[in-house]
Amino acid sequence: MEKSFNKVSSLILGTALTASVASGATGELSKVMKERGLSEIDVVRAAKTYNPTGVKDKYVVFSSGGQSGQMIVYGVPSMRLLKYIGVFTPEPWQGYGYDEDSKKILRQGNIRGREINWGDTHHPALSETDGKYDGKWLAINDKANPRIAIIDLTDFETKQIVVNPVFKSDHGGAFFTPNSEHILESAQYAAPFDNNYHSIEDYKEEYRGGVTVWKFDPKIGRVIPNDSYTIEMPPYMQDLSDSGKGISNGWGFTNSFNSEMYTGGIEVGMPPNEAGMSRNDTDFLHVYNWEKLYKLSKNPKNVKMINNHKVIPMDVAVKNNALFLIPEPKSPHGVDVDPTGQYIVVCGKLDTHASVYDFKKIKELINNKEFVGKDPYGIPILDMKKTLHGQVELGLGPLHNQFSPVDGEIYTSLYVDSQVVKWNFKTLKVLDKQNVHYNIGHLAGMEGKSADPQGEYIIALNKLSIDRFQNVGPLHPQNHQLIDISGKKMDLLVDMPLPLGEPHQAVAIRASKLHPHVRYEMGTNTKTGKQHIGKTLAGQERIERDGKNVKVYATLVRSHINPERITVNKGDNVTIYITNLERAEDETHGFTVDNYDLHGSLEPGETIELNFNADIEGVFPYYCTEFCSALHLEMMGYLMVKDPNKKYVSSQKLKMKKMSPEELKAEYDKTIAVNNATDSVIQSVVKFLKDNNYQEHKVVANLVKDALDQYNKIPEQKRKANEALKKGDVEKAILFENMIWQLMVKTADVGIRAKDSLVRLVATKQSTAAARGETAFAEGGCNGCHVIGKVSSGPDLTGVLQRHENGIDWVSRFILAPETKYNDPYVKAMIDYFNLKMPNQHMNKEEVKDIIEYLKWVDENANLF
Amino acid sequence: MEKSFNKVSSLILGTALTASVASGATGELSKVMKERGLSEIDVVRAAKTYNPTGVKDKYVVFSSGGQSGQMIVYGVPSMRLLKYIGVFTPEPWQGYGYDEDSKKILRQGNIRGREINWGDTHHPALSETDGKYDGKWLAINDKANPRIAIIDLTDFETKQIVVNPVFKSDHGGAFFTPNSEHILESAQYAAPFDNNYHSIEDYKEEYRGGVTVWKFDPKIGRVIPNDSYTIEMPPYMQDLSDSGKGISNGWGFTNSFNSEMYTGGIEVGMPPNEAGMSRNDTDFLHVYNWEKLYKLSKNPKNVKMINNHKVIPMDVAVKNNALFLIPEPKSPHGVDVDPTGQYIVVCGKLDTHASVYDFKKIKELINNKEFVGKDPYGIPILDMKKTLHGQVELGLGPLHNQFSPVDGEIYTSLYVDSQVVKWNFKTLKVLDKQNVHYNIGHLAGMEGKSADPQGEYIIALNKLSIDRFQNVGPLHPQNHQLIDISGKKMDLLVDMPLPLGEPHQAVAIRASKLHPHVRYEMGTNTKTGKQHIGKTLAGQERIERDGKNVKVYATLVRSHINPERITVNKGDNVTIYITNLERAEDETHGFTVDNYDLHGSLEPGETIELNFNADIEGVFPYYCTEFCSALHLEMMGYLMVKDPNKKYVSSQKLKMKKMSPEELKAEYDKTIAVNNATDSVIQSVVKFLKDNNYQEHKVVANLVKDALDQYNKIPEQKRKANEALKKGDVEKAILFENMIWQLMVKTADVGIRAKDSLVRLVATKQSTAAARGETAFAEGGCNGCHVIGKVSSGPDLTGVLQRHENGIDWVSRFILAPETKYNDPYVKAMIDYFNLKMPNQHMNKEEVKDIIEYLKWVDENANLF
Repeated sequence: MEKSFNKVSSLILGTALTASVASGATGELSKVMKERGLSEIDVVRAAKTYNPTGVKDKYVVFSSGGQSGQMIVYGVPSMRLLKYIGVFTPEPWQGYGYDEDSKKILRQGNIRGREINWGDTHHPALSETDGKYDGKWLAINDKANPRIAIIDLTDFETKQIVVNPVFKSDHGGAFFTPNSEHILESAQYAAPFDNNYHSIEDYKEEYRGGVTVWKFDPKIGRVIPNDSYTIEMPPYMQDLSDSGKGISNGWGFTNSFNSEMYTGGIEVGMPPNEAGMSRNDTDFLHVYNWEKLYKLSKNPKNVKMINNHKVIPMDVAVKNNALFLIPEPKSPHGVDVDPTGQYIVVCGKLDTHASVYDFKKIKELINNKEFVGKDPYGIPILDMKKTLHGQVELGLGPLHNQFSPVDGEIYTSLYVDSQVVKWNFKTLKVLDKQNVHYNIGHLAGMEGKSADPQGEYIIALNKLSIDRFQNVGPLHPQNHQLIDISGKKMDLLVDMPLPLGEPHQAVAIRASKLHPHVRYEMGTNTKTGKQHIGKTLAGQERIERDGKNVKVYATLVRSHINPERITVNKGDNVTIYITNLERAEDETHGFTVDNYDLHGSLEPGETIELNFNADIEGVFPYYCTEFCSALHLEMMGYLMVKDPNKKYVSSQKLKMKKMSPEELKAEYDKTIAVNNATDSVIQSVVKFLKDNNYQEHKVVANLVKDALDQYNKIPEQKRKANEALKKGDVEKAILFENMIWQLMVKTADVGIRAKDSLVRLVATKQSTAAARGETAFAEGGCNGCHVIGKVSSGPDLTGVLQRHENGIDWVSRFILAPETKYNDPYVKAMIDYFNLKMPNQHMNKEEVKDIIEYLKWVDENANLF
Repeated sequence: MEKSFNKVSSLILGTALTASVASGATGELSKVMKERGLSEIDVVRAAKTYNPTGVKDKYVVFSSGGQSGQMIVYGVPSMRLLKYIGVFTPEPWQGYGYDEDSKKILRQGNIRGREINWGDTHHPALSETDGKYDGKWLAINDKANPRIAIIDLTDFETKQIVVNPVFKSDHGGAFFTPNSEHILESAQYAAPFDNNYHSIEDYKEEYRGGVTVWKFDPKIGRVIPNDSYTIEMPPYMQDLSDSGKGISNGWGFTNSFNSEMYTGGIEVGMPPNEAGMSRNDTDFLHVYNWEKLYKLSKNPKNVKMINNHKVIPMDVAVKNNALFLIPEPKSPHGVDVDPTGQYIVVCGKLDTHASVYDFKKIKELINNKEFVGKDPYGIPILDMKKTLHGQVELGLGPLHNQFSPVDGEIYTSLYVDSQVVKWNFKTLKVLDKQNVHYNIGHLAGMEGKSADPQGEYIIALNKLSIDRFQNVGPLHPQNHQLIDISGKKMDLLVDMPLPLGEPHQAVAIRASKLHPHVRYEMGTNTKTGKQHIGKTLAGQERIERDGKNVKVYATLVRSHINPERITVNKGDNVTIYITNLERAEDETHGFTVDNYDLHGSLEPGETIELNFNADIEGVFPYYCTEFCSALHLEMMGYLMVKDPNKKYVSSQKLKMKKMSPEELKAEYDKTIAVNNATDSVIQSVVKFLKDNNYQEHKVVANLVKDALDQYNKIPEQKRKANEALKKGDVEKAILFENMIWQLMVKTADVGIRAKDSLVRLVATKQSTAAARGETAFAEGGCNGCHVIGKVSSGPDLTGVLQRHENGIDWVSRFILAPETKYNDPYVKAMIDYFNLKMPNQHMNKEEVKDIIEYLKWVDENANLF
């Protein structure tokens, strides 16, 4: 303990403290350090990554979800997961792929008529303006089924899926060009562009790789398939890509790993692909001018239409000086363009070096038509050495690179060495290495691949976690490790286990660039952004029948579904349009029909469509699947499916006791009395809020708006209650009055939260002594009986210092020795009233002094309690 | 900054430090606190929840995933998510619901022939022995589609789904009885037990609630449906349940919220359910003897068979003194039995009180047949007051309870007040309140509902997070907040956003009670635990054809799939059995066929079956979806689907340059040389490991086993290489030699990790000065050029102190002023060799002294580098 203390103190105090001072330490932090075995540096790392409640992160990371087919969102530096976004895999929490509207998005991803219900997401990309992230759109590719999806960052929902019509797989996407004009997507495993069988013996002749240059409209955030084209490439297994920027803008770079064109055959005694595909010392970096080729693609004579999609044949690209090859080290993984666009860094994962290419040198060779030869497909090859700025030995298994704002500073992942290496791609010097756990694939810098890297942190996306976490079975979580790069030396701060999916790449953006909304315009189809044809406002709920077609227009609001009963015939085609009428932030409702595999999730303002054939007879409850209010269980109804060919006989009625008119009247009066009492509480809160100018505090004003939203529904219910009463239906009147009470509870729920927020905002500042006093008051257990502003198991202490002569002295002495005052007439009266004696809590004089300061602060703010 | 320092120091040092000492503080922690705006208490909270890399959590939490249909696993106190377990929703990362074997589990959950592809998981339960958690099995219910699932805690996989044959929804499950004899599952929304339509007008007569008592066999971890039964209950909307324990063992308790039997009708002008279902001041707690009823259920005359399932009618239960009702406060949520089994705490969410029932009093009234009446269904009602130990006013919206090891101490969630309240259910006193953010539903103590609560922490499962986290769109994460309950006063430690799903309840267990394995017996069907019919060992890979039926027996191992080519005819029925041959921990492989919606995930030793009709012609790559080794991209092959009715013509061969025999020989020799060099590196590592008795360190021994696993595959490849060479096929020999190199890389990957682990374990202990020196060495940038044990951009420094006369003095002076020695002949030679001058890094004398100590330590351990 002494040792651990010394370490902490030296951290905090520099070296000013001597061991003799330290030996007296008894503080809470050193106790926790001892108990949890934390070192001094652990505490600093904890402080660097800990977010107190309500504190938000500086960066937001978007990580692919691998085979989960989803996108993962988390915050930095807290490394807390914020959201999984459904992209290629149906996900019921979001309702994604369950309601008809999101199903339409998911089904855009059908391939040759086949439904695909998952994906292997690999490389997320953020939209760019001038090469910098603009926080508007997010793209992600599916390696398993060559597709690209677009996510809207105003609501973090998937809006479009585009199938690649000629590729049979896709690894090297998605990459935005610097003004989001295009998205690059490269094939992985070479295959015929058409959909026919071609023998593997014809691999070199019929199998092809390529890069698809999707046209993207950044205004509407959609890919425009018929303005897009694919560059045909040899079957070299194209891998990752990057778009040029700055001086290399207009160009694209794609590497490859099977220039051997090996096709395996382990089953017939051949060495496996892993041996044959890594035989050569070099593969090919593909360099192409997507800007020029895009213009060429507009002219039909330059393209071949395959599966109704424009393909620019290799010879056309070559003839137009738009496609070149440069040897690159064996089986590379990453190709990363630096923020200026001049340098292109390629790491060959089976080579210990990183290779830094200089675009100026590449461009010069191209301009001079200085080639060392052509590949078998006629593509000019540039001399590797002449295009290189240089090479640096980094270690075993270098893969990917990220940049920092420091000139020339670059971070590279080493898969086999399980390290991140910091080096300088200009001076070609290694600067630092950091161990990670284990087998890092990609790594993510803060905007580290944009034209404007932010530095501060690097995240290691590790593929194995083996011994890092509590064992949760043979399938381990993955491990994203946050590394502080702000100092001279990298420092591993914290591990984040990934509970679902195998992320491949992640991109990070400054949180301040994101501006998502919290609700939709009422009745929005969130997938199109337009008004939903099923939009239904309060009062418009209805069931329409047209033969066997039944359309239900339903609404959801805390805490009821309208309608509460839907009766259809077996065999009917039923469409339910549902609108979430809420305006309050975070008031999502769900809707499910039990046993019918029907489910939706609706954010405030959203409308969805559910569609089904009522093919099973019976009674099926439906309900809101969100814990949306205290009465959430009661937010339900019944779907009843009758068989039109059956005769149903009503059961004999159970005899139930009926209430007499007198009993009903008594209940009615009681209900009214409860409502009046509840309302007066609400009115006092309203007065408090108004008196303290709640409008001036946005967070409070929003809550009040939500509370009033509930409260304003009361007159309508009151009208109904009075109407029933007038007609003599006291029972119904009671129920409507009860509904009013429910609305009051919901008003109070939010209203009290608003009041508490306001108190914190408007109270006078506590002195240090008063703050200590509040803690002593709580830790001493005083708050067990005394609630400030309220009579609880003991008297309200607001004004207690004024209540007695020499109040401070009286109260102090009473706390220190309550038993001496048990016969004091006032105390005696209190003991009788509460049936409880104030106990001696053994506070010391200092604590009592502080509590007095706290009580003074209470009195200063008495109007707030 | 001074202020923040004072706060920290006072925390650490108690009150020993004076402000004058403090004013000199310049430590790193206070810098971080200032930058991140952290208070002293924030730092303590950070330290209480921070896990340094590799440190494991003390508790593991299993949380329902709500509408995600999954189960969520996380650690305490780190609040890091460890796993999402697929339960009712298909999940491709785990392959759950994608391969045929897991599909079988998922399809056990079909209802009346309908596939259900999601669930609304609510209440997880851990299996018990003597009322204590035993860490063996986990059960979870689906509210939307009344089902129970069983998860095996040896591999965290779902093994069974059981559909409730009579319920139409299910909220109050799952709850284990104290020796896991049964699992209780109560209905929620009353509905007819049969599958027919019954008019809502016949609600009281035909709609029913109930509790199903599932028989569970804790040895095999499976529900035994035909030894299970359901207790018929009135249509009161049964809600949560709990099993008795200790003195109440054999009994069950289930509350309800619609004893009004209101059935809504908002669409016909009636007040909504939320008003009608909360009209009465009390609802009914159902008390039943499941032990007695289980015995009764064995006799057919006591049961009615409905949908082939045993139902005990209410009158049979009543006649046998096994079913009773007690009034309970309005619309309750939780019913929680204390660790002794004597007290049952019920919170009425629309009442501000908690009610504490005393089972001794209940039992006495039952024994004396002292009832206040009967309900309309003839069930005896006990007097509420006479069964109560007492009631306590807690606040607005009390819901659920958790216990601690302190006698009488209980924690209750307050939904409307957004608080956790700590009180004593014996003395009926409120002790403390803690604000949470916002609208807490359940709360989870550490084994807080078992017979042996552990205390320490409470987790608040909040339904809203509104302003807590970075905005990620209208659908917000939920918020689980960790509260320290070890002190007098609760202390909110940290927020964990939930990125997917809406958890309802969570249960926590001491991590030391869990013993999951990390691999399976080779060829296991993990869903049955038995050997898979498709088990395939290395060398047994084959493709078998029988007419249109094709069976492929395939294997996966780093980094190849065997076979690499599968050719079938269009229309064939294809079954692929795949076995993951790995023995290494965490070496999961995936398998997908592109565009065919086929996917599997296999942990080490697992075998799965994929099944499909080859209905689309073409060429479809397949690959391993895990980043399983540096060569993972090469782990691929092709499915080729030929149309038997088409004629295919081979393409004209592309002319490729052939290598001459001399060139081939040169490449062969080079390959052999590379392999020999790589092998000598491996041998030096092996020698090091042996010399340092690696076997004595389990973690290292495991890694070595994995490395040797790779290495031992070499002789077989060598044999093939030599065979090819003998036959004059030099090209093939090169490829097999290349395969040997791949195996060497994989050996080195793991072997180097083993060596690094061993170095840390066997090196002599560093002195404090040497440790400081190592930091200075790194922070000073020395490690940019000098790698200990290796010549890098500068000389290896192992032995540097011996290398020069008066070595310590020489090295010290060289570090302090390198420029003075640039003409020293030795230094000059080094400058020439490395083409680099040792720069002045401006270290101070203290740092240099420490570095010397570090270099001494290096020399002490020279054999390790």
